[in-house]
Amino acid sequence: MNPELLLSRVRVVLCRPSHPGNIGAAARAMKTMGLSDLRLVQPRVFPDAEADARATGAVDVLQAAKIHATLGEALAGSVFSVALSARRRDLGPQPGEPRSMALQLLGEAAHGEVALVFGNETGGLANDEIRQCGAAVTIPANPAFSSLNLGAAVQVLCYELRMAAWSGMPPAADAKATPFASPAATHEEIEGLYGHLEAVMRDTGFLNPAQPGRLLPKLRRLFGRVRLERDEINILRGLLAATQQPTAHGRKD
Amino acid sequence: MNPELLLSRVRVVLCRPSHPGNIGAAARAMKTMGLSDLRLVQPRVFPDAEADARATGAVDVLQAAKIHATLGEALAGSVFSVALSARRRDLGPQPGEPRSMALQLLGEAAHGEVALVFGNETGGLANDEIRQCGAAVTIPANPAFSSLNLGAAVQVLCYELRMAAWSGMPPAADAKATPFASPAATHEEIEGLYGHLEAVMRDTGFLNPAQPGRLLPKLRRLFGRVRLERDEINILRGLLAATQQPTAHGRKD
Repeated sequence: MNPELLLSRVRVVLCRPSHPGNIGAAARAMKTMGLSDLRLVQPRVFPDAEADARATGAVDVLQAAKIHATLGEALAGSVFSVALSARRRDLGPQPGEPRSMALQLLGEAAHGEVALVFGNETGGLANDEIRQCGAAVTIPANPAFSSLNLGAAVQVLCYELRMAAWSGMPPAADAKATPFASPAATHEEIEGLYGHLEAVMRDTGFLNPAQPGRLLPKLRRLFGRVRLERDEINILRGLLAATQQPTAHGRKD
Repeated sequence: MNPELLLSRVRVVLCRPSHPGNIGAAARAMKTMGLSDLRLVQPRVFPDAEADARATGAVDVLQAAKIHATLGEALAGSVFSVALSARRRDLGPQPGEPRSMALQLLGEAAHGEVALVFGNETGGLANDEIRQCGAAVTIPANPAFSSLNLGAAVQVLCYELRMAAWSGMPPAADAKATPFASPAATHEEIEGLYGHLEAVMRDTGFLNPAQPGRLLPKLRRLFGRVRLERDEINILRGLLAATQQPTAHGRKD
């Protein structure tokens, strides 16, 4: 697929950015690498003169930026997302490195829109934000000082995306060769599955809402590794719905 | 040679930087990638509070920075140098791309100190400055907007140096097992899950044994992609067993 088209399908999502200057720097970094779809989740200050100043010739990216109330809203309609994570997490996907994640992200961009998700300058992404993403990436930094500026981190990842788009093209063909592959599931469809799973677990007493433990995060971790397809979601939800029918089990025992 | 030692031999030279904020950003970018030797040729303003602010935890790099009157002085004692060049030049070395130049620079660092040379924010490097360097590098940017911020350009090149020093696998990126990752499920455990799934699908009427269609193969294809862990099998089978209890659903409706 056309490299420019692939790059145009990558959203850059900044969650709760504190400094408008960093939003401008991110816009500039994106545009230098051929990206343009900027999403802001609860920016502290935006729009702002400092953002415009740091964007220089990329003010058009700022002007077209969409503002969202939640990360879920920013990811709506996307088929794959990668969270920047500064450190190893207890739950959620374990981070890969930028070069291989850039290839994977562009491979998924062949199927629909994808997203690169960045956290707040101080606290990064919250655990529940990371868990909403299909994969995570860590920039391999100096363990003694690993804190990249937000704009600089956007620059490194967009650079890897551009390098990937033009040189080692991702293996888009072979992964889709199976006869009954269906379209990639969207963020909402995947969240719908998790909601359904939780409901069945709660209704059957398998999950105690007062003491949920790590059941749900573990299920997210499991399905997060798969890149679910729409058909598969339908099967799983069909099965869950079938278990919720009064017919079978109640009479059996 | 030790990757940290190689990286410590790379000088970052900023020629005539205009904005002290960019000097701070460059220092931060260097330190995140394990570099520390910053050289400033005729900085317009330095030291400066804005430089310190943008450096955050890399103020030590700023404090150790050496100030030079000429590029020649900044390169004294080095055995190889690479100039960042935004465009093709009439004279001097034709630019390579960052990945291969990073390898070459580190190869030379085995023999002595080397340098990465950056120009002024507005005008870049002068021709006579580029000619003093052994090679040139261009960051492959969007032809319609190729102007990276100075700090962002330093970040990209230092990132490539770090990747090259560790042969693409810097230690921060190593993917170890997560704290509660459990052993990989065995073949029998996975087959047990499929059997359990099939039983629930049949008992709930979701699967018609006379016309099974492709439901089971599709589920196998889904879970086949995950490399299931034992804990995950236990969760899934626990959930399936819970749906088979007479308690919840049978009475509910």
